[in-house]
Amino acid sequence: MRNLKMVVEYDGARYHGWQRQIDSTTVQQVLEDIVCRITREKVVIFGSGRTDAGVHALNQTAHFKTSCLISAPHLLAGINSLLPDDIVVKQLLEVAESFHARFDVKSKVYMYQIVNQPIRSAMYRNYAWYVRTPLNLNEMEKGLAVFKGTHDFTTFCGKKKGNYNCIRTIKDVRLEIHSSGLIRLYLEADGFLRYMVRSVVGTLVELGMGKRTPEELYDILQAKQRKDAGITAPAQGLFLVEVNY
Amino acid sequence: MRNLKMVVEYDGARYHGWQRQIDSTTVQQVLEDIVCRITREKVVIFGSGRTDAGVHALNQTAHFKTSCLISAPHLLAGINSLLPDDIVVKQLLEVAESFHARFDVKSKVYMYQIVNQPIRSAMYRNYAWYVRTPLNLNEMEKGLAVFKGTHDFTTFCGKKKGNYNCIRTIKDVRLEIHSSGLIRLYLEADGFLRYMVRSVVGTLVELGMGKRTPEELYDILQAKQRKDAGITAPAQGLFLVEVNY
Repeated sequence: MRNLKMVVEYDGARYHGWQRQIDSTTVQQVLEDIVCRITREKVVIFGSGRTDAGVHALNQTAHFKTSCLISAPHLLAGINSLLPDDIVVKQLLEVAESFHARFDVKSKVYMYQIVNQPIRSAMYRNYAWYVRTPLNLNEMEKGLAVFKGTHDFTTFCGKKKGNYNCIRTIKDVRLEIHSSGLIRLYLEADGFLRYMVRSVVGTLVELGMGKRTPEELYDILQAKQRKDAGITAPAQGLFLVEVNY
Repeated sequence: MRNLKMVVEYDGARYHGWQRQIDSTTVQQVLEDIVCRITREKVVIFGSGRTDAGVHALNQTAHFKTSCLISAPHLLAGINSLLPDDIVVKQLLEVAESFHARFDVKSKVYMYQIVNQPIRSAMYRNYAWYVRTPLNLNEMEKGLAVFKGTHDFTTFCGKKKGNYNCIRTIKDVRLEIHSSGLIRLYLEADGFLRYMVRSVVGTLVELGMGKRTPEELYDILQAKQRKDAGITAPAQGLFLVEVNY
């Protein structure tokens, strides 16, 4: 069997996230249906991880096995010609049979976009969180630094089913002022828990509003109580930027 | 009567351009309907000029007269609360009664976005022209410079109704490489003819593909023959960026 790695860009607005579901349209399902149609095989596409409904991806990574003989460039062109215009496969590469898009991940980079100005934005309505209250970016940057390193992120993850490990290592954080009113937060980690970035961003925004201090952030991280975290930032501001192997 | 100037941002994807029409939804109509509802008057909103169906605006300017007594900040908030999320009024200012959004224009800046890479983009599908053929940006920059100055732009305007003046002065041009594959062309002029920017961009892209030379461009500009121009670039790449008074 051939093993193929794909890099996918999608605008998440119309999709119920990455992962196949019974009743809603997801990116994985759209991709699988098209690859099955072309290869005339039952193909399962394994993503590097889920993205939530409404979340975008610039470089989501996935792999699938196939015995179909069509060359990768032709397969790529075929898939893209059948995909809707809000999903595109940017790369399709032959990889070692052992490659697994989820288990082999070394790190992932997420970016979160915030529009912070007195008036909402029409152009960014599907691509950023609109926050009207002026944010103290210095405080947010200090808060962001608290997350760097290895921590138990129980406070910042969705409801747990079972008793799994919530320890993750955040390798890098960055706050960029992109243009007047447009803020980008970057987080790189060896892995992310469900709602982790959105929960971290929601808490940082409360900090930017003066509702919390960077010191409190450290305490609530230690407390491992979901209720201590801030609001969960809306999905449309979140972008999966990179998956490193 | 009060005279109010408004600065409007809109994502043109869903609209049949700026100008009110009988059978299609336009930005002017959506704005007028809302302003009429709030002021309880028949209000006509005069834009700085039309934008075509699918064209976006970051700072379209308009004015309207009203005898309603609601303060500008309250009126602004009221209008924005009723507008769909792809249109927003960024500013609403009391101006001299003589101010006219169209007649007083000193210059306008348009930006045209091109995605030039082997694979189309999902995120930019509504905000750029996807050109697969690699473009020679040096040649395009040389071509762009040909347009600078005062010229008769008959070659680069839509079908004329009547015999109006096609002389316009392009004050500034700029080609920016924004990120790998994303090109932005900026044109500032004292005024633009219908389809002028899109026709100029279409011709420049042909130049970037090696189908024309900068010297030919000069000749076809002089020839004043519509048939000599290149294709008209698609609407979704075009942004009205600024209107100066």
